[in-house]
Amino acid sequence: MAYFESVNKIAFEGKDSTNPFAFKHYNSEEVVAGKSMEEHFRFGMAYWHTLTAGGSDPFGAETAVRSWDKYSGLDLAKVRVEAAFEFLEKMNLPFFCFHDVDIAPEGNSLREFYSNIDTIVDLIEGHMKSSGKKLLWNTANMFSNPRFMFGAASTCNADVYAHAAAQIKKGLEVGKRLGAENYVFWGGREGYDTLLNTDMQLEQDNIARMFHMAVDYAKEIGFDAQFLIEPKPKEPTKHQYDYDAATSIAFLQKYGLDKHFKLNLEANHATLAGHTFDHEIRVARTNGMLGSLDANQGDMLIGWDTDEFPVDMYDATLTMYEVLKNGGIGRGGVNFDAKVRRGSFEADDLFLAHIAGMDTYAKGLKVAAKLIEDRVFDDFIEKRYSSFSEGIGADVVAGKATLASLAEYALNNESPRKNQSGRQELLRAKLNQYILAD
Amino acid sequence: MAYFESVNKIAFEGKDSTNPFAFKHYNSEEVVAGKSMEEHFRFGMAYWHTLTAGGSDPFGAETAVRSWDKYSGLDLAKVRVEAAFEFLEKMNLPFFCFHDVDIAPEGNSLREFYSNIDTIVDLIEGHMKSSGKKLLWNTANMFSNPRFMFGAASTCNADVYAHAAAQIKKGLEVGKRLGAENYVFWGGREGYDTLLNTDMQLEQDNIARMFHMAVDYAKEIGFDAQFLIEPKPKEPTKHQYDYDAATSIAFLQKYGLDKHFKLNLEANHATLAGHTFDHEIRVARTNGMLGSLDANQGDMLIGWDTDEFPVDMYDATLTMYEVLKNGGIGRGGVNFDAKVRRGSFEADDLFLAHIAGMDTYAKGLKVAAKLIEDRVFDDFIEKRYSSFSEGIGADVVAGKATLASLAEYALNNESPRKNQSGRQELLRAKLNQYILAD
Amino acid sequence: MAYFESVNKIAFEGKDSTNPFAFKHYNSEEVVAGKSMEEHFRFGMAYWHTLTAGGSDPFGAETAVRSWDKYSGLDLAKVRVEAAFEFLEKMNLPFFCFHDVDIAPEGNSLREFYSNIDTIVDLIEGHMKSSGKKLLWNTANMFSNPRFMFGAASTCNADVYAHAAAQIKKGLEVGKRLGAENYVFWGGREGYDTLLNTDMQLEQDNIARMFHMAVDYAKEIGFDAQFLIEPKPKEPTKHQYDYDAATSIAFLQKYGLDKHFKLNLEANHATLAGHTFDHEIRVARTNGMLGSLDANQGDMLIGWDTDEFPVDMYDATLTMYEVLKNGGIGRGGVNFDAKVRRGSFEADDLFLAHIAGMDTYAKGLKVAAKLIEDRVFDDFIEKRYSSFSEGIGADVVAGKATLASLAEYALNNESPRKNQSGRQELLRAKLNQYILAD
Amino acid sequence: MAYFESVNKIAFEGKDSTNPFAFKHYNSEEVVAGKSMEEHFRFGMAYWHTLTAGGSDPFGAETAVRSWDKYSGLDLAKVRVEAAFEFLEKMNLPFFCFHDVDIAPEGNSLREFYSNIDTIVDLIEGHMKSSGKKLLWNTANMFSNPRFMFGAASTCNADVYAHAAAQIKKGLEVGKRLGAENYVFWGGREGYDTLLNTDMQLEQDNIARMFHMAVDYAKEIGFDAQFLIEPKPKEPTKHQYDYDAATSIAFLQKYGLDKHFKLNLEANHATLAGHTFDHEIRVARTNGMLGSLDANQGDMLIGWDTDEFPVDMYDATLTMYEVLKNGGIGRGGVNFDAKVRRGSFEADDLFLAHIAGMDTYAKGLKVAAKLIEDRVFDDFIEKRYSSFSEGIGADVVAGKATLASLAEYALNNESPRKNQSGRQELLRAKLNQYILAD
Repeated sequence: MAYFESVNKIAFEGKDSTNPFAFKHYNSEEVVAGKSMEEHFRFGMAYWHTLTAGGSDPFGAETAVRSWDKYSGLDLAKVRVEAAFEFLEKMNLPFFCFHDVDIAPEGNSLREFYSNIDTIVDLIEGHMKSSGKKLLWNTANMFSNPRFMFGAASTCNADVYAHAAAQIKKGLEVGKRLGAENYVFWGGREGYDTLLNTDMQLEQDNIARMFHMAVDYAKEIGFDAQFLIEPKPKEPTKHQYDYDAATSIAFLQKYGLDKHFKLNLEANHATLAGHTFDHEIRVARTNGMLGSLDANQGDMLIGWDTDEFPVDMYDATLTMYEVLKNGGIGRGGVNFDAKVRRGSFEADDLFLAHIAGMDTYAKGLKVAAKLIEDRVFDDFIEKRYSSFSEGIGADVVAGKATLASLAEYALNNESPRKNQSGRQELLRAKLNQYILAD
Repeated sequence: MAYFESVNKIAFEGKDSTNPFAFKHYNSEEVVAGKSMEEHFRFGMAYWHTLTAGGSDPFGAETAVRSWDKYSGLDLAKVRVEAAFEFLEKMNLPFFCFHDVDIAPEGNSLREFYSNIDTIVDLIEGHMKSSGKKLLWNTANMFSNPRFMFGAASTCNADVYAHAAAQIKKGLEVGKRLGAENYVFWGGREGYDTLLNTDMQLEQDNIARMFHMAVDYAKEIGFDAQFLIEPKPKEPTKHQYDYDAATSIAFLQKYGLDKHFKLNLEANHATLAGHTFDHEIRVARTNGMLGSLDANQGDMLIGWDTDEFPVDMYDATLTMYEVLKNGGIGRGGVNFDAKVRRGSFEADDLFLAHIAGMDTYAKGLKVAAKLIEDRVFDDFIEKRYSSFSEGIGADVVAGKATLASLAEYALNNESPRKNQSGRQELLRAKLNQYILAD
Repeated sequence: MAYFESVNKIAFEGKDSTNPFAFKHYNSEEVVAGKSMEEHFRFGMAYWHTLTAGGSDPFGAETAVRSWDKYSGLDLAKVRVEAAFEFLEKMNLPFFCFHDVDIAPEGNSLREFYSNIDTIVDLIEGHMKSSGKKLLWNTANMFSNPRFMFGAASTCNADVYAHAAAQIKKGLEVGKRLGAENYVFWGGREGYDTLLNTDMQLEQDNIARMFHMAVDYAKEIGFDAQFLIEPKPKEPTKHQYDYDAATSIAFLQKYGLDKHFKLNLEANHATLAGHTFDHEIRVARTNGMLGSLDANQGDMLIGWDTDEFPVDMYDATLTMYEVLKNGGIGRGGVNFDAKVRRGSFEADDLFLAHIAGMDTYAKGLKVAAKLIEDRVFDDFIEKRYSSFSEGIGADVVAGKATLASLAEYALNNESPRKNQSGRQELLRAKLNQYILAD
Repeated sequence: MAYFESVNKIAFEGKDSTNPFAFKHYNSEEVVAGKSMEEHFRFGMAYWHTLTAGGSDPFGAETAVRSWDKYSGLDLAKVRVEAAFEFLEKMNLPFFCFHDVDIAPEGNSLREFYSNIDTIVDLIEGHMKSSGKKLLWNTANMFSNPRFMFGAASTCNADVYAHAAAQIKKGLEVGKRLGAENYVFWGGREGYDTLLNTDMQLEQDNIARMFHMAVDYAKEIGFDAQFLIEPKPKEPTKHQYDYDAATSIAFLQKYGLDKHFKLNLEANHATLAGHTFDHEIRVARTNGMLGSLDANQGDMLIGWDTDEFPVDMYDATLTMYEVLKNGGIGRGGVNFDAKVRRGSFEADDLFLAHIAGMDTYAKGLKVAAKLIEDRVFDDFIEKRYSSFSEGIGADVVAGKATLASLAEYALNNESPRKNQSGRQELLRAKLNQYILAD
């Protein structure tokens, strides 16, 4: 292994505060709230951002300098596998995630693509066995190739739909072979650019049909991974059907798919949809739909997906708070769907960025666990809603109340309970105190 | 009738192009696509914006100059009823809508509020009989009074919940008495300001309980109006539970309420949620959920609800396009939930603004009807998706395809159908041509 | 003093970590980077939010419960003065700020307003003498009264312009009498709602004329306060002329006012304009224009001015970083232009919120001072731009280079210096480390 | 000429309403408000969008199908020149615009780039002579090459600065040779991604130095084009220094460059900065800074630059209204800095999109001219501000008023002039009437 020569695994573990390659908070074996950090997070590396992408943007060419730049085609794909496992090992990451096109070139035909995938999956399987690294999830990229310009499962072209099905089929087979814990659907082109040329009803029906076919095929081949939809409101498509958690849930309920799918939530997608990340997680968990997390952060003054590495302590704390309240992330994990900035083009930046993200989440976990242990918010909330635990409130919750009984109560209750302050400022100050460990 | 002396009904109908009080496009009796304009639109006046509001904003006091400014209390409420019906008559509007607090003062107790409502409803009932004007919908204002600072059906205070129930009960009774076509729920305070002090699960369960109680009570008293939820993402509450159409549908489905409710969609609420108005209507109609419309428009560079009178021809055309495709607005209507600008403080502006809105919608209806008649978009769309009407595409739609059959097809189909241009620019130019009647 | 009975000053100083009324970080006498915290911050209380406002919003009535609610008119104004100084004392705040209408009722004429102001200013002056509290700045509210619906200095009505001038004149006199350190102009209605009815050129010329008159009058009466413009992009007016720091600077330069004015920057105004607060401060300080700060924070998912108390450690740290780099805030200060949430309606919340804000800024100051002391960013930046300290780069800076000499250099420089990573992720992690005191 | 075989110039001029390749409103020779449309608009083709770009986006590969796809390198560059002039001819566009890298490959060295540019400029010069087509403006692309990752004139690397200077020098020489009417600077990378690693002061000083050098060199070689800065708030860079018109003007004023530069304003850049396009133009013209226009439109629900072809009648009308009020666009023009949607990938779409844009602007011009001719807004505005033409208002405008004289007037003016309604709704309805030609 020699693709990241400048970084030595030992250095990470040295806890040397002057060494930028040292974790400050993350320690895979440290136990928090009854589980090791490794078990809490199930951190994953995003193959596309770390191995495949190069830092291009709509106004500029790739900037990344990588030791594998000299290779191309299938050779490049092979070298990247080796580099990927070196990175996982050095970063102490237990999981990884990929789209089919991240790991293998598409070639000139579907048949060739299948063949390339098989070649690379052989390699990956070998590395997984020797390293113990695991596949958090895989997926099919059905948005980059020009054929998907109008969608994959929502395309207006039946032949493109068939091609998408072929990619999903292969993806499920690869997932089964590599023991993927989850299989993800992100519909970057499933939506519309203008309603003037769009049959939304047919498109959504066809997406549901594809999902049912995928459920059936997974069952057929005995692939028992958790299926996940990943909501995003827009970009690249002007309006995407899986706008946010609630929209995705509405879709799954409507088409009888809610028993088969959970959600893979991404921080930056949440904010693009007008929500905080913890809101989206809360929505998912109150619906029993929390599947997995894509950890990153957006720039709140910018209207596109910046996929920055997560370094905001507030977000990390509230995210892990929700995860702990959910009883953990289950078969999901925390995948760094994050990219180094275009100006952070050196290989070292990949490490520095993952360290920054892992440390932020590790500290967030500790703060969240302490907040829960001390019942900082729980006690406040319990008291705040206590009027629903007795008398007329308990009747409401028990389903015994009617408009008539409540109106009668209201008319005859001359001194109703007054509201108490919501204490938002105090609660935020408490959050600060726990983060700063005052 | 003397509250709007400056405006004479005759003038409106004069079609005098130099008279600002003349309609240019709206004619209640004109038949478009098989129905009179009056039947298409079922235009409504919003009592709160037109009779009650005064042009205040968070940084400034009321500016409106009204002939009823000298009255107060119940006298003011009575005078406003007379002014309301004078306005409806002069504007040729068939419907109106109100919140309970718009029409009657709350007084010092719930009992007094009930009494005030009864007094005013007597008056309204009389005016309705003599004028033939109808109630499109009524609702209870459960967001302005300080008691609702933490919500009504989502409050943390059971006594407040009971008070909300009492208002809804009265609202349903008033609706029944006045023959309301619909009953609306807008949850301006149903949501949260911070999750740090919020039990989202209990709050949403309690909202669902309240809705079920309302359904039961309406049935009990024989009030058969259509029930409507009005989505809005935020403002006044930081995050409202009825974020948009899809979110509201998810909620209704989850709690078994989707058979009892439809949606009252508002243009400015749509844009605050990141959608176009026609998107929200399309979502509603593909779910059989289109109930009624609140017509207004926002300022796309401004992040709060501006509730401007609708004057954008594009929005009006695409809105009416969706309504026509829905087979009409049913028992709903087009309510002008719109307010004159703070600087448009003269009574005349109320007329000028409604004329602007009605004319815009009238022209939009005509354009939409012509677009449908000429099948401008329908033909394009039909051809665009034609691959799903035959062969493998038809198999997909018929539910006969599987991942395996589709993959087999893709592998053996060496010359797949190529995509055809989506022609967005051309379709938009076509829309312009129809609007400009080129 | 008995308006805030529930809170005792002693408790603040107890440093009791279980007492929510105890500072965690702020200590007025503690020395950081060579100055006491009191000198660094010059914290101010906003009279309008703390004494005058009541928690109303566009959809709801006032919620605040205050011990002075039973008073009205001039009596209320007098009681508020006493409460204000009790609050300043208990909170240990050295400064306060007000608009004319915050302290005195407008009455029925300008003459009566002048008289009311004089009455209250007498009271304030007495309290200032006995307490040692100082006036950071005062200003004239020229946006709430309906007369200002179309602006004050930018009004289309010359009589309104004269009224505005009269308020400014009185404001300058009051400022002189009370020894105000600054005098502020916030043009909440100086802008337009639609260009269709607006003469932007005349409006801006008239604003400049008013500013020149104010400069002249201050000179005439010997009032040597620093004059400040407060930028805001919108709200209440759709488009305000003082959009942001750069826009305000352009205006001041154009009209020859840049020697007489500096900027009063507000955090939430910055974000509404699409900038971070530290960006706005950086722009001001690179132009020698940093005057004073309005401390608060917005909600980045919300499009209006929420004026929340500042509790974000990142913003506070970067704000104080810029202030330290500026050599301090000069005659300005840090005014809490922040309001408790509508649900934080109890008097205690006023204290809790100010403690939260002051602690956040105090910790931010300490972190910023340490970052500067350790040259964390300075060293990185110095090295990053070092190519401009020698050779061709030094020639550029010295003004010796031309396009021809640079092109010649580029053509003949076969191995140009490569870029080095910008290390954004590492630098953000460093910021976290300093905040968390890792 | 055979690169656009499917489209025949004659068809355009046929005014056949069923032919999508026919203009509906644009007629180069038609006289409006005293000038031909060709003179009014000076329409330009953007070489990059029409000849060079291929429809890629951050999530997908190029989709465009072009007849020159089979060529590469310098051959491709040559073929594109031929195609460009064929397109200009068929579209009846008098002008074009380009960046250096649009027309010529960069090769492996600056020297080779110069050589390639020379080769292509020879070709272009020939085509210009034979066709009569003209260069509206050229510019240097200093944002796509990785060397500019940290800026060009604002780079932290002096060697990169020198390279930028070399490109500008060549650009000025090319501009002179081809008789460019303007020379544009768009600083897509001139800004910062994080202030943590940025010396804003040095960067802006260096930009100013580069601009002064460019001014000097143009003078030296006798190139008398108008120099233009093109503001944009963000994208690709998180925060760009030329945020909007006002910010750019502040910069030019500060560095003594305002006599040498005007602004090239772009519609989508305006909306990304929170302004309407007509606002930006108004700001420029009240400062004597209106240089040229980049015509396109954004999607108001999307936070990035979509560069759509302009089809919004409101925007086109208000844009041309400002241009007419400016006395025309001068040496500038209306450049279609617009790209066909990724799904509009066929060559025909290039024509359809330009027709849509030209027709929209042509209709907008006619409507604007009629609005001015009829003094629809002018009369209203003149009356609205009439109080500044007499008495105290005239004194203000004449500079004779003081705070004291105005306060005296206000105190003694017992019946001040009341405000009159701003009539926003009526004025918008008027705008609709003129657009719809009611």
